[in-house]
Amino acid sequence: MGDSAGDNSRSNFHDESLRIIDLAKELQDSASSLLSKTWSEEQAICKRAFALDSSIQKVQASVEAAVKRGALDRNEAEKLDEDLYKARRIINDGDVSLLLPSKSHGTFLRMFLGPVNVRATKKDAKLKVKEEYNNYRDRTAILFLVFPVILLTLRRFCWQGCFPVWAVQPYQAWLLFLYTSLALRENILRVNGSDIRPWWIYHHYCAMLMALVSLTWEIKGEPDCVYKQRGVELFLRWAIMQGFAMLLQNRYQRQRLYTRIALGKAKRMDVVWGETAGVEGQLWLLCPLLFILQGFEAYIGIALLRTAFAGVVSEWQVVFCGILLLVMAVGNFANTVQTLMAKSRFKAKMKRSKSKQELDHSSPPK
Amino acid sequence: MGDSAGDNSRSNFHDESLRIIDLAKELQDSASSLLSKTWSEEQAICKRAFALDSSIQKVQASVEAAVKRGALDRNEAEKLDEDLYKARRIINDGDVSLLLPSKSHGTFLRMFLGPVNVRATKKDAKLKVKEEYNNYRDRTAILFLVFPVILLTLRRFCWQGCFPVWAVQPYQAWLLFLYTSLALRENILRVNGSDIRPWWIYHHYCAMLMALVSLTWEIKGEPDCVYKQRGVELFLRWAIMQGFAMLLQNRYQRQRLYTRIALGKAKRMDVVWGETAGVEGQLWLLCPLLFILQGFEAYIGIALLRTAFAGVVSEWQVVFCGILLLVMAVGNFANTVQTLMAKSRFKAKMKRSKSKQELDHSSPPK
Repeated sequence: MGDSAGDNSRSNFHDESLRIIDLAKELQDSASSLLSKTWSEEQAICKRAFALDSSIQKVQASVEAAVKRGALDRNEAEKLDEDLYKARRIINDGDVSLLLPSKSHGTFLRMFLGPVNVRATKKDAKLKVKEEYNNYRDRTAILFLVFPVILLTLRRFCWQGCFPVWAVQPYQAWLLFLYTSLALRENILRVNGSDIRPWWIYHHYCAMLMALVSLTWEIKGEPDCVYKQRGVELFLRWAIMQGFAMLLQNRYQRQRLYTRIALGKAKRMDVVWGETAGVEGQLWLLCPLLFILQGFEAYIGIALLRTAFAGVVSEWQVVFCGILLLVMAVGNFANTVQTLMAKSRFKAKMKRSKSKQELDHSSPPK
Repeated sequence: MGDSAGDNSRSNFHDESLRIIDLAKELQDSASSLLSKTWSEEQAICKRAFALDSSIQKVQASVEAAVKRGALDRNEAEKLDEDLYKARRIINDGDVSLLLPSKSHGTFLRMFLGPVNVRATKKDAKLKVKEEYNNYRDRTAILFLVFPVILLTLRRFCWQGCFPVWAVQPYQAWLLFLYTSLALRENILRVNGSDIRPWWIYHHYCAMLMALVSLTWEIKGEPDCVYKQRGVELFLRWAIMQGFAMLLQNRYQRQRLYTRIALGKAKRMDVVWGETAGVEGQLWLLCPLLFILQGFEAYIGIALLRTAFAGVVSEWQVVFCGILLLVMAVGNFANTVQTLMAKSRFKAKMKRSKSKQELDHSSPPK
């Protein structure tokens, strides 16, 4: 009886495992057919999107031509442009965009990650990437404030005016990690359709390089450490201001982004970094702060170069960091000014089109 | 007539832009419906896959129980296990796997990239990630060989026995980048279903940390630089051996991976890193080389610790790097031995089942 029970369970198990293999094969077939069907439907939608995009371009070109030969006036052309822009946004920002082939990933991402796909394929995932980026910036801004404040306080009250190496270098290593991670994340946002200004990414490459170089920079101790560590001290003071500005920026940018999304002006993936943000009134607080920060950045750069050429600290790292800080300050300044100019042009245009509307429709001013 | 021509083109443009907006809206609708349809079909397949997976587990458990109470013998149980393993592989490695929710990304990827999706959603993309990873390792192995050889040669013939700081630090920075990038890529492979042994990833975290610390390590010049730079010199010699071993490993591993895929033993995403590889005969070449490398790694670690405790170079970096090298050497050794033991167990099992088959079916031995 024991044997027949054994035979029984043997054949039972055998049947069961055959059934399972069959089920697995069936599942495999449904998955393959779903993938290939989806793929061909996606291709069809991509084709339609490309065709539509090229006809938008064609119409835009002929509107332009019509304006030039006087068959169409500026205002009508602008109205048409707005409609075409709307159509383009439906393609590039809506569900269609999730099916289009991704933008090129760029050298930086490829260098670190290889040719991996970093595009969100679902709308909620895309928003999650952006949200997480904003939260990350909030968290880092606080660390930007806290770290240097602690270091400067301890120097004053515990370290008799001299930074110990073991305290400054972890901060520099953290900066290197932070800027690498920010640069990676911004490149990923760009792949996901954000219109982040390229300068902000280059700016983080510069900052990465500076953090790396500062790690190799020997922090001199006694004697005269107050004099020799002047560069480090200035750098930490700048970091505190930077953290303060980042916190303000993050808060106002997020508010502004939500307003702009509500008004339909921005794609949700846009990064409204520092200089491009500020809700009207807040712009008057942010702009001077940003200009002061940039001035201070340039000042530290020059101070570093002066200590190098005066022979106090003669390492190449000092010269290199000085030059990098100057480049970053000038680049930041130029980009802030460009953004402000674009903003004022936009405002003037809005005003014009608004007064035009009022004339056209005699609508009461709001 | 000019006016009527103007009116004409005006209304033409207006019609055209309306038509384009309609087309864009239609496109948007088809994209949305495709996405939601695909999503629900994907969910259905996931559900089936999970159900199948749990019934596989159930059968495995009852087979185990049947063996314990003597209703099934070991060999029959092994045969059933193989069938169930096959079914599981169809789920986890075929087209079905592309539709399953991804494994957790882990802290390291989240730290650098945020919650972005790094999973390949197409089979060819998945293979591209793996291929590119192999190619990347080939390229870096060559740099591992070339960089230190150049540095050691120049020291001998141009630099009178002393490394200049500007030559060594870029190499250290490159190492930091390399290990960061390898750790990121291996984490991405893991998300994409590779069974890479966790130790190889931890090993790269240790190497990252060491490269970072070595950057802050002041490279002493004259006098007595030969003595003080002994650690750097040993490290470079180790890097040359490492490069040589990597090249050999990469070649044989790739061959072996292809053989294993052909035999159906490995998933295509498996990383057969160094110690786990070697086609039989080549194992006899690789294994001693790997053990020598690990011994040399430990030797450098101890040498560093000795210079630190003898008071020649008293910086904390020396002690830290020494300990890290020892940890890596021990970890590498333990993992190599484990892999070899797993391999010999597997071989013994294969032999057993082969001789069993020969007895059962009286098939002529191959």
